[in-house]
Amino acid sequence: MAVGTLVLLRHGESVWNAQNLFTGWVDVPLSEKGVKEAERGGQLLRDAGILPDIVHTSLLRRAISTANIALDAADRHWIQVRRDWRLNERHYGALQGKNKKQTLDEFGEEQFMLWRRSYDTPPPQIELGSEFSQDADARYADIEVPRTECLKDVVARFLPYWESAVVPDLRAGRTVLLAAHGNSLRALVKHLDGIDDETIAGLNIPTGIPLRYDLDDELKPTNPGGTYLDPDAAANAIKAVANQGR
Amino acid sequence: MAVGTLVLLRHGESVWNAQNLFTGWVDVPLSEKGVKEAERGGQLLRDAGILPDIVHTSLLRRAISTANIALDAADRHWIQVRRDWRLNERHYGALQGKNKKQTLDEFGEEQFMLWRRSYDTPPPQIELGSEFSQDADARYADIEVPRTECLKDVVARFLPYWESAVVPDLRAGRTVLLAAHGNSLRALVKHLDGIDDETIAGLNIPTGIPLRYDLDDELKPTNPGGTYLDPDAAANAIKAVANQGR
Repeated sequence: MAVGTLVLLRHGESVWNAQNLFTGWVDVPLSEKGVKEAERGGQLLRDAGILPDIVHTSLLRRAISTANIALDAADRHWIQVRRDWRLNERHYGALQGKNKKQTLDEFGEEQFMLWRRSYDTPPPQIELGSEFSQDADARYADIEVPRTECLKDVVARFLPYWESAVVPDLRAGRTVLLAAHGNSLRALVKHLDGIDDETIAGLNIPTGIPLRYDLDDELKPTNPGGTYLDPDAAANAIKAVANQGR
Repeated sequence: MAVGTLVLLRHGESVWNAQNLFTGWVDVPLSEKGVKEAERGGQLLRDAGILPDIVHTSLLRRAISTANIALDAADRHWIQVRRDWRLNERHYGALQGKNKKQTLDEFGEEQFMLWRRSYDTPPPQIELGSEFSQDADARYADIEVPRTECLKDVVARFLPYWESAVVPDLRAGRTVLLAAHGNSLRALVKHLDGIDDETIAGLNIPTGIPLRYDLDDELKPTNPGGTYLDPDAAANAIKAVANQGR
């Protein structure tokens, strides 16, 4: 059986994206713009005739709502659902809840970009029990909640889920939608496209635009980098993300 | 381990409920009132401290949206999800898409109530390929779609799912939310409370008000009939449902 189609969908704008705050594992809702992005994502799936058989989401509301809204718009609201913390956004440590612009001003360009973009330098750890820590959150009762993460950490905790939960769906020939976050999706794209630790720093995935990967029998993309269902909108959005925090 | 808590939630008003049409397996969305009912259902769960660990839904949008909205309001949007056609509303056969009042006027009180309420008399079969038939719907590709159903048929197709998919969750001590429909929930309540074929005809389950069942080791309710999380609203709503089609 041919390997199924993989579709990545980064959640639409959240209320904290709109306020330029570091979010990480803080469970904020979509903004009105984010809801519209999710609807548009679902319309792009429907118009392209890409009909997911199963959706995997993180445990965070902005990805879950994006999946719900997009699948409803694509008339695929009834498909199977799986959720796992391993698809969560990168934990931003002590930066969670902080304003990006203020953080840039306080710590300077070099430190700011290191925390945002270096592969293996995590932000400072969050204080346990503090306002934006998740150590007492019921949904993470079975795991040790991270206190900070770099992208390397996200790769390490995401790939076991990819191998054990997503790959079997693809090998069964299913069309798989992954509704997740900027950094959990970058972790996957790094793996799929074999991107090195430096180059991944410059890669941005736009919100709300489905990214299709066609995979061969070794799960290597036959369309390296994937194919955005709205390439022009994706190109414009990538520029905008690169300017965040300025 | 003690048996977990079961919570039943009938979807809020759909756009066809509002238009007084027989719906059955036709996949119509919630009305604005239905969305508000679902939010209120989630608030009732949250306020009662009843926190579902898993939700089971039908394959129909009005139950899926109700679950999504209620769980979001209860901050339990991240729990596990299972969906199955066996939780669907009763298939209303050739009545699907027809106005309830017009049907009552055309066929008379006796025939109308027989189709709506008798345990084992289904409405006439729907024509395959007709506007409101589901025989070509992708979500039912693996089953033979019914052409009509009476409540007895619903009991027969729902109970295997109850035994194989819901009971194991309850035996594992989990709090289980079932987001479904008037007749699939009546089928379950008939089974749980041991209601006979005649008496079940008079039982209405109101929309949007969670109904909690506490079960003993034999899965018999220790609170027969269950406990509505808002008993006054439930009593008023039950009266209103009984007057539908008048």
